Amino acid sequence: MIAKLIDKIREKNAPVAVGLDPDMKFIPEHLLKDARRDHAVSLYGDDELMAAAEAVFRFNKEIIDAVADLVPAVKPQSAMYEQFGVPGMSAFWRTVQYAKEKDLIVIGDVKRGDIGSTSGAYARAHLGRVKVDGHALRVFDEDFATVNPYLGTDGIKPFIDVCNEADKGIFVLVKTSNPSSGEFQDVPVKDGRPLYELVGEKVAEWGQLSMDGDYSNVGAVVGATYPEQAGHLRALMPHTFILAPGYGAQGAAAKDLKGFFNADGTGCIVNSSRGIIAAYTKEKYAKYGADGFADAARAAAMDMIEDLRTIL
Amino acid sequence: MIAKLIDKIREKNAPVAVGLDPDMKFIPEHLLKDARRDHAVSLYGDDELMAAAEAVFRFNKEIIDAVADLVPAVKPQSAMYEQFGVPGMSAFWRTVQYAKEKDLIVIGDVKRGDIGSTSGAYARAHLGRVKVDGHALRVFDEDFATVNPYLGTDGIKPFIDVCNEADKGIFVLVKTSNPSSGEFQDVPVKDGRPLYELVGEKVAEWGQLSMDGDYSNVGAVVGATYPEQAGHLRALMPHTFILAPGYGAQGAAAKDLKGFFNADGTGCIVNSSRGIIAAYTKEKYAKYGADGFADAARAAAMDMIEDLRTIL
Repeated sequence: MIAKLIDKIREKNAPVAVGLDPDMKFIPEHLLKDARRDHAVSLYGDDELMAAAEAVFRFNKEIIDAVADLVPAVKPQSAMYEQFGVPGMSAFWRTVQYAKEKDLIVIGDVKRGDIGSTSGAYARAHLGRVKVDGHALRVFDEDFATVNPYLGTDGIKPFIDVCNEADKGIFVLVKTSNPSSGEFQDVPVKDGRPLYELVGEKVAEWGQLSMDGDYSNVGAVVGATYPEQAGHLRALMPHTFILAPGYGAQGAAAKDLKGFFNADGTGCIVNSSRGIIAAYTKEKYAKYGADGFADAARAAAMDMIEDLRTIL
Repeated sequence: MIAKLIDKIREKNAPVAVGLDPDMKFIPEHLLKDARRDHAVSLYGDDELMAAAEAVFRFNKEIIDAVADLVPAVKPQSAMYEQFGVPGMSAFWRTVQYAKEKDLIVIGDVKRGDIGSTSGAYARAHLGRVKVDGHALRVFDEDFATVNPYLGTDGIKPFIDVCNEADKGIFVLVKTSNPSSGEFQDVPVKDGRPLYELVGEKVAEWGQLSMDGDYSNVGAVVGATYPEQAGHLRALMPHTFILAPGYGAQGAAAKDLKGFFNADGTGCIVNSSRGIIAAYTKEKYAKYGADGFADAARAAAMDMIEDLRTIL
């Protein structure tokens, strides 16, 4: 699957993923109003949650339509759907399916991770198929999922098995973009090196189990907000593809991202969520207004792509 | 919420949680057959997933009915529901609600964790309320959730805020029960101490932000399979309640668990999943047969409670 992602990045000349994290405060009022009026068409339980989830899906659909020709991938963040309960998970599923119909690669930002047999269930849920009475059924069926490494190899291995069976990929959290990521991730371990380097080495090792062209289907999450750390990790994991969140709203800019890429300009995809999907709320794109939220997202995605091209 | 859990443990004289991890291979065939026959009553998408999810809920319902007078709590594991997609998440929700109706405490074993704003969405999804157009709506509404610490304080703090607002609790992964948990969790850090002790100290510190009687609403997950490590952690975190998975099927016995409790016999709840819910598949309880799976679970729960009472 990583080879497919790299092809799409090349085709669009844009190492960019649009993060679909539809916080209710970014969803223009008219979408919720319309969803509430129409929600009888949907099939799920609680009315208000149903209307919210329907609004989220409609919001995503317009964003996807607006950016599908510009970017290779979208990254829906599961928390933003789970908060609307069962209807929210339906909106997550519909978003994944719709993005795939539009020929986008879908990175499910689910950050799952558990002991072996349980990680197997998450891997089936998000990337593989679940067996019911002899039938192998697709479930959420993203192309990639993000995975938490804290439980070690037996939490990761079931995901790698599914990557190999179904040609899918994962991005393992190595150095996350948030301010307090250093609390445990930067703790000095062997020879005074930080823990995230040990995790990075392990990711490179796991990567050998699922190579797909120049890179592995086992990638790494490295926050765009930590360029120095990314430089070390890039050297330590030459065949590991990096998913870099944190561009834009979280503060990283193109100049911070050069070290995330290999010398040939491959090896990384940069994610922006709020900076694109909520662009209409920023002064720079305010002229589009709430009704033009999708056009604002398109303009912000184009600006981000231009910005990144300056370093490649 | 931890005070409420402790009261219930005392009332039933049983520091035991029953893990509701309904792997399809434990679900007796007749339940799936019946669910498939009846599935038209349910409202969700894909037929086979719907039948599987319905069978899972019916299985849980019988287990809950069989153990509700014996134990204080159940612990549904979200992966086992997510693998059946949107209908599976509905079965998770229905399981949580049904267990609460039966006056059980529900520990959502979801192992979520993300950067601040996103962790906030998970906290609302599982413990708090989500705001839609001014209405604050309950979502999955478990009593406790398990949380992954790898992202540090800003991933945990939103959960603690919800614990304080809504009187709920969390259990943070400190030392997990699986064989490879040591890969990162045991890595020597400051003064050669293992990383899990550093995480344990941080859990104790976070715990001060949400005290509820003698213990904090911020608890810790420590695998029953690691008694020696638990002894150190117990001393390091005297006011932290421990959730100990790994009894039974994963190999831990009562004698391994003494050090998880404080001297007064409080401070820990022990979980068994397969050992109870799949008891009818073990030789010891085979006489109950597949039709008697719930009676087998009741017998296994009683045996586990007797076993633990010998050390308290």
